[in-house]
Amino acid sequence: MTDHPSSSSVPPRPAADHGLLDPALPASAVTAQTSDAAVVAGLLEVEAAWTQTLAEAGVVSADEARAVRAAADRLAGSVDLDELARAATAGGNALIPLLKRLRAELPAGFTAVHVGATSQDIVDTMLMRMAVQAAGTVVADLRAAATALAALAVEHRSTPMVARSLAQHSLPITFGLRAANWLDGLARAADRLAAAAAALPIQWGGAAGTLAALDGALASARADGRLPDDGSGPDAFALTSALASRLGLQDPPGPWDTTRLPVTQVAAALADAVAACGRIANDVLLSSRVEIGELAEPTAPGRGGSSAMPHKQNPVLSVLVHSLALSAPGTLAQVYTAAGAANEDRPDGAWHAEWPALRRLLRDAGAAAALTREVAEGLRVRPERMRANLDRTGPVLVSERLMSALAPRIDEDRGEPGAGRATIQAAVDAHLAGTGDFRAALRQAAPAAVSDAELDRLCDPGGYVGLAEQVVDRILAAHGLDGAAEKTDD
Amino acid sequence: MTDHPSSSSVPPRPAADHGLLDPALPASAVTAQTSDAAVVAGLLEVEAAWTQTLAEAGVVSADEARAVRAAADRLAGSVDLDELARAATAGGNALIPLLKRLRAELPAGFTAVHVGATSQDIVDTMLMRMAVQAAGTVVADLRAAATALAALAVEHRSTPMVARSLAQHSLPITFGLRAANWLDGLARAADRLAAAAAALPIQWGGAAGTLAALDGALASARADGRLPDDGSGPDAFALTSALASRLGLQDPPGPWDTTRLPVTQVAAALADAVAACGRIANDVLLSSRVEIGELAEPTAPGRGGSSAMPHKQNPVLSVLVHSLALSAPGTLAQVYTAAGAANEDRPDGAWHAEWPALRRLLRDAGAAAALTREVAEGLRVRPERMRANLDRTGPVLVSERLMSALAPRIDEDRGEPGAGRATIQAAVDAHLAGTGDFRAALRQAAPAAVSDAELDRLCDPGGYVGLAEQVVDRILAAHGLDGAAEKTDD
Amino acid sequence: MTDHPSSSSVPPRPAADHGLLDPALPASAVTAQTSDAAVVAGLLEVEAAWTQTLAEAGVVSADEARAVRAAADRLAGSVDLDELARAATAGGNALIPLLKRLRAELPAGFTAVHVGATSQDIVDTMLMRMAVQAAGTVVADLRAAATALAALAVEHRSTPMVARSLAQHSLPITFGLRAANWLDGLARAADRLAAAAAALPIQWGGAAGTLAALDGALASARADGRLPDDGSGPDAFALTSALASRLGLQDPPGPWDTTRLPVTQVAAALADAVAACGRIANDVLLSSRVEIGELAEPTAPGRGGSSAMPHKQNPVLSVLVHSLALSAPGTLAQVYTAAGAANEDRPDGAWHAEWPALRRLLRDAGAAAALTREVAEGLRVRPERMRANLDRTGPVLVSERLMSALAPRIDEDRGEPGAGRATIQAAVDAHLAGTGDFRAALRQAAPAAVSDAELDRLCDPGGYVGLAEQVVDRILAAHGLDGAAEKTDD
Amino acid sequence: MTDHPSSSSVPPRPAADHGLLDPALPASAVTAQTSDAAVVAGLLEVEAAWTQTLAEAGVVSADEARAVRAAADRLAGSVDLDELARAATAGGNALIPLLKRLRAELPAGFTAVHVGATSQDIVDTMLMRMAVQAAGTVVADLRAAATALAALAVEHRSTPMVARSLAQHSLPITFGLRAANWLDGLARAADRLAAAAAALPIQWGGAAGTLAALDGALASARADGRLPDDGSGPDAFALTSALASRLGLQDPPGPWDTTRLPVTQVAAALADAVAACGRIANDVLLSSRVEIGELAEPTAPGRGGSSAMPHKQNPVLSVLVHSLALSAPGTLAQVYTAAGAANEDRPDGAWHAEWPALRRLLRDAGAAAALTREVAEGLRVRPERMRANLDRTGPVLVSERLMSALAPRIDEDRGEPGAGRATIQAAVDAHLAGTGDFRAALRQAAPAAVSDAELDRLCDPGGYVGLAEQVVDRILAAHGLDGAAEKTDD
Repeated sequence: MTDHPSSSSVPPRPAADHGLLDPALPASAVTAQTSDAAVVAGLLEVEAAWTQTLAEAGVVSADEARAVRAAADRLAGSVDLDELARAATAGGNALIPLLKRLRAELPAGFTAVHVGATSQDIVDTMLMRMAVQAAGTVVADLRAAATALAALAVEHRSTPMVARSLAQHSLPITFGLRAANWLDGLARAADRLAAAAAALPIQWGGAAGTLAALDGALASARADGRLPDDGSGPDAFALTSALASRLGLQDPPGPWDTTRLPVTQVAAALADAVAACGRIANDVLLSSRVEIGELAEPTAPGRGGSSAMPHKQNPVLSVLVHSLALSAPGTLAQVYTAAGAANEDRPDGAWHAEWPALRRLLRDAGAAAALTREVAEGLRVRPERMRANLDRTGPVLVSERLMSALAPRIDEDRGEPGAGRATIQAAVDAHLAGTGDFRAALRQAAPAAVSDAELDRLCDPGGYVGLAEQVVDRILAAHGLDGAAEKTDD
Repeated sequence: MTDHPSSSSVPPRPAADHGLLDPALPASAVTAQTSDAAVVAGLLEVEAAWTQTLAEAGVVSADEARAVRAAADRLAGSVDLDELARAATAGGNALIPLLKRLRAELPAGFTAVHVGATSQDIVDTMLMRMAVQAAGTVVADLRAAATALAALAVEHRSTPMVARSLAQHSLPITFGLRAANWLDGLARAADRLAAAAAALPIQWGGAAGTLAALDGALASARADGRLPDDGSGPDAFALTSALASRLGLQDPPGPWDTTRLPVTQVAAALADAVAACGRIANDVLLSSRVEIGELAEPTAPGRGGSSAMPHKQNPVLSVLVHSLALSAPGTLAQVYTAAGAANEDRPDGAWHAEWPALRRLLRDAGAAAALTREVAEGLRVRPERMRANLDRTGPVLVSERLMSALAPRIDEDRGEPGAGRATIQAAVDAHLAGTGDFRAALRQAAPAAVSDAELDRLCDPGGYVGLAEQVVDRILAAHGLDGAAEKTDD
Repeated sequence: MTDHPSSSSVPPRPAADHGLLDPALPASAVTAQTSDAAVVAGLLEVEAAWTQTLAEAGVVSADEARAVRAAADRLAGSVDLDELARAATAGGNALIPLLKRLRAELPAGFTAVHVGATSQDIVDTMLMRMAVQAAGTVVADLRAAATALAALAVEHRSTPMVARSLAQHSLPITFGLRAANWLDGLARAADRLAAAAAALPIQWGGAAGTLAALDGALASARADGRLPDDGSGPDAFALTSALASRLGLQDPPGPWDTTRLPVTQVAAALADAVAACGRIANDVLLSSRVEIGELAEPTAPGRGGSSAMPHKQNPVLSVLVHSLALSAPGTLAQVYTAAGAANEDRPDGAWHAEWPALRRLLRDAGAAAALTREVAEGLRVRPERMRANLDRTGPVLVSERLMSALAPRIDEDRGEPGAGRATIQAAVDAHLAGTGDFRAALRQAAPAAVSDAELDRLCDPGGYVGLAEQVVDRILAAHGLDGAAEKTDD
Repeated sequence: MTDHPSSSSVPPRPAADHGLLDPALPASAVTAQTSDAAVVAGLLEVEAAWTQTLAEAGVVSADEARAVRAAADRLAGSVDLDELARAATAGGNALIPLLKRLRAELPAGFTAVHVGATSQDIVDTMLMRMAVQAAGTVVADLRAAATALAALAVEHRSTPMVARSLAQHSLPITFGLRAANWLDGLARAADRLAAAAAALPIQWGGAAGTLAALDGALASARADGRLPDDGSGPDAFALTSALASRLGLQDPPGPWDTTRLPVTQVAAALADAVAACGRIANDVLLSSRVEIGELAEPTAPGRGGSSAMPHKQNPVLSVLVHSLALSAPGTLAQVYTAAGAANEDRPDGAWHAEWPALRRLLRDAGAAAALTREVAEGLRVRPERMRANLDRTGPVLVSERLMSALAPRIDEDRGEPGAGRATIQAAVDAHLAGTGDFRAALRQAAPAAVSDAELDRLCDPGGYVGLAEQVVDRILAAHGLDGAAEKTDD
């Protein structure tokens, strides 16, 4: 475009990206489902499906529909993507030069292609189909991961571990509860994404959303006898409805060229999927630290190694998911910024800003789900390390229980209301200050009627998991995964 | 906290914000509904409702519940918000110092408050109630705006104007279609927000999500006879379910301390509302420019004036909505970043990052909806300017129609396929180059059988609005607003 | 990685992106400068430069350095980028599999490659070099655009037009002032980006930032006589300094693996460049609307056309720049989120999140600058439309001047302080209400001593441009462009 | 504005925010420096300073300047902020109603206020002054924190600890190096912010940036003798320059109403400060976990406690800083979105979007710096826990060193090139698999000439810190903090 002084430093290969700076993306089929080759195939598919729809209604001939289909197929396999991308700059979108190439594949003057359509109709409809397809992959991986976590939740329904709040030990839980909470996030995100994808519509309105050209074409067809002139033939809305069915998309009441809620809804659901995965990755990264060691990622040959440090095994799946969780919100903001900047009857830049952002979110969610599925299906759980970490803080961890279960008995024993709480708090303080043995102080304070065994029971953090197990059951039931353990045991 | 050298420059008043740098926010009741005073009232309400729930189940006495309620009411009206905010820094959230003050209002040793709860339970549940209440305000304003637009859509169902795509004249539409498209965005956003708000749950799990302390308290109550010891009394889940009903929130299967999808869902729906309003503001800003003049905001005494320029009337409602549409996506990104950074059993910072962002989105959506409602209810429409602008581009605007309706007749007339398109294109080119009179060229090219009147009709942009009117009807019907015109005519 | 049910829908081509969804990017050489092929070339260049640096210091032999260089060159031209991207997933970055392939090109046991380095050293240093190179392209285009605007500012230093604030006519300015303000943004952004790029450092510290392995290698070299054992040879810092010089980067005092200010600084400067361009695009989009028509983008064959609407000429350059301005802030947020989420001695995901975001900002700035340069160099200015729009609001536009210049004379004439302001305000109000002729009212109010000619002069908006021309001069001088007009006149 | 059904639920207090949902903000004086009271004081200060500037030049009288100053002072202490905020909605900014109130404090017809100014001049200049003042506080806290870290870096220059990359043990470093890296980030961020603040300009151009009204006022002053009519008096540029000096801001060559680089530059520098602090908080949160225990935040009475869990000590300072680091990027995106959406001569919403975002960044940076300073000044370092964690991985951690120092001697001893690396790798693998004693395997493999003591030395992770100590020295020197230890020892 300009003769930059630095242009000599440009490498000779096409400026294509294969993912070298996005190492998470190859993890998912979504990346290929949303490639530039898939964009071209999708654009051509929409054009071919439209002519086919018109043929079935009698507006164009079956031969014409076959010709478009054949030309589209030829082009999908042969078009030079690099050249096409450069040509797209001039018109502002890829459909304009692609349509020109498609028309060149058809006989001169062939008019049964792109009938009554505008480039936004094709581009938006292609993006929606791409989103539906990619969302299907994401949902499948999220649900597979949830199923794997359900099995872990059942297996470890009663495995005690320490909860951490604000990065510090708080109270005992079970690992089953942790896994169920993870699952809850994935399953909800999957439901939300599936619902958002199922609601995605075609975009079809012609250059200004009035279907004027299509309506005109139908009038011509009625005039020249291709359609019955008694009004019994299809109207424009029937045709767009048929197109929607053919493409597996919804048929909206009107154009949404500038009302981008379909896009924001699926984008937000994708970001939810990434966040639900990200939260798990954060926990795995923390739990697989050397000093904590409660969890470990599945290993695979050649994965997570370091060329410099032979002892090192990096939790690379979770590292990559974490990186996606850091990035996706900025991409979501781009989609919403575009939606809020849209104007008039085709946005003057906001529309264009949306495409790479939506694709990026599809890919981020795809990679996050695929990687999380792999983590969930192969996660190594170390109950003995959970127990050891739980015992680090020890009985002081359940001082909440001692306050409620032991303090009243001390009060009663001493006939001194408040004595129990004060004594236990003093023991906690001494323990934290390193100046006293907590268990010994409790023994001394507790009435003789409290046996050593009972005191041990009260002090055991592993015994104070509240209703963790029942919560696991509730979560599994809420997502229809209560039979997960049996199924996965097979 | 530190003795900054610059501390002498701090003004003596409390560092409170009233909205001076956020001029849009006072436009909506949401701002007050989400004020710090409302935060305190909400936190106290959750505490009082919980004790009341326990009282109804017999776990605590009715007197205790009344005492908590009375103390909460006293405190809500009297607490020093500035001092409380400073105290919140030490614990990381406002509930910790507020609970201390609440306990100070109760008799020493009073235990029937905050039973089995943790600060996150109270804060999250308060936020969800606040979100439900604020969302109600937003939805009401969005729907009122949509109803007003429905009336405009009906009134101007056939009022021609020029559509603009990529900022340039594209084809004729009707202003009714534009209004219907606006309406479609608002109504969809309202539906989405209402659904998201209706799904918001309480958060209740105690310090680690296991309900352990509550379970222990119930065991004590059974032990000391407050509850029947035959298991016929309520369990912890029954109590949290009752609390949810009391507060008008959902009862989730498990804790969501670290699985923040309820928050992201309502946040995304709020951002959708802002975007749907923002898109309208963009159009009003463009349409009310001096040179375009198709629309004007409602005026009000003292609004939109300029102290320096007496001739100036600023479209200040739309300016403010546009500013919100620019900001909301960054705030939404904060909510999603927090969700994806959450870890373990209470996030170590991600939770805290979420509060101001969620509140900001509630307020942004509140202000955007209220301002848009005001615009919609008072919008001044100027059909004559729409017509004049449409005529600026003139018949060349409908060259699409001429290509389909006139070109075949020229072909036929001349017996020369393709002649029609070529002739019309030449006329367009000459017109654009300023070297020819489009209408005259058409007259010359058209067969004699095409009368001047018919040619005028074909050339009239106002007559080429396609199915705009039917699309208006479809959109109104889709949102149950097809009777809007009648209703608002009363 | 997983057997997705949908994998059959994946197209067979490599999942490479050529820019089909990013139509702005091919506009700039930066896109190719930052392609995956350039990433590979850059990584290999850093490895080769390091061995060369060691060779010049005598740590390894010149033959070894030549061998690495030759292997790197072979690999740069032959490596399968798609396969490499997939391999990068396992290790989390592309260098790990690339280094393996590089070692495979060298004799077995060859140790003079990657000496004392870790993958982060290579990746970060490559990114900094890439940023410097791309920033050079961006700065050149920004400065070329600024120079073109300087010529416009000089040419139109006195061309009157109406200013718009909050989308409404405010006061007269000159188009030269507008162009100078645009220029000011571009020139400042260029200066900032050039400064940020000049400060970019190498990253070199080995696996933990201690240079331990390099220090050990030097000790070995001293032990076996490759280096003098009297301490006169280079130390590790001397070598990293030499590497920095060789690569055209700065030598930092310590590692910045986790202290990402170099990255955020250049990222912010790139976002500034996009914003400075975006602001111009917004103005061009507004000014080239049919109803305003003050400016038009340069045309080029095949650009900005619409297949459906032959009359349409889209300002596609500005549309694309506007889309970049909407997107870049979300990408910048990703860079800052990553910087703030960095931890310990190599971030566990934050580092990975940074790469695609930084590259995207380089490309966005590259495209914005190239497109803006093209707009600036070919912008078509229509003074007659500026004048016509200015006259739309007419003398009322300069009521500010009438208040200060005419009102005192009316006061004096009538001997009634305040009479002048009141009279003029009444005339303005009548004008705005459409109930009075402003000029006539002034004539009636003005003293006889004010001649018609003087009144005309006072009422002429074109004559009330204040110090616009001097401000143009000041801005040009501030950026050393005061001689621009002469230069570009040649 | 509208009669919302829910308005009855609005609490009766003013809707002011005191920080209840922003618990970090009260930690810094910046919050008060940027309060709404400070906004009002700042706006009035700019108005008063301008009249004073005019008085010194003789354009208005000293009495007039005193009157404005007195009125401004009265108003600053008395204006109802809540009412003012509501009034600001109508005009779109707070200056419009505030100026009305200011004029009401002055005699009727008093004209020596707001001479030639527009509301944007006052608002922007106020914001720049606020930014300078707040940045001063931030920079002071960042530098104090850096100084405290310098002392830690010196004290622990040689204290060994394990580095972690991608969350896993990598190699030994010293804690001094870690502290120096933290310091490097803070000091760089402080330098950048100080430079950005020092460059902030006044905004002064009148309604359209032409200084037309001011120029007219000067002409009047020359005409009526207040200024010499021989051109020896000040021109408009001299006056704005004097105003800039008076307010401690720069004097720009032209208006920047729509060229927002001053704002983006300071905003980016503030976000850098937050990120530099956030990175430290992340490390403190990890290091103060129970299982790691290498660091602990300073304690203070009442801070970090949990009402439910008496054993718990939360690292609340770092929690809050982490929350700020998660939020600031979204706010920065808002500033850049606004800058890129600016248009014409006063942006129609983008300008308004910038104010709350800039203020939020000032406060975020203020709180992050103050909290980080407190952490740095009181951080508790536990070398014994660092050592214990280092020894967890043990000699295998320095396999890199063994490969380079021991492997060649094994090769030589056995006369078998490659034998050393193979043997050591086998020992590492056996160790990682838990099937072999690493130290014993090394002893068996090593030549007899390697004594046990030498082997111990080679295996000691604490002895393999490379040039960590020298890097500490380099970083301290780079920031002029090499004498920090001595100074802080006093």
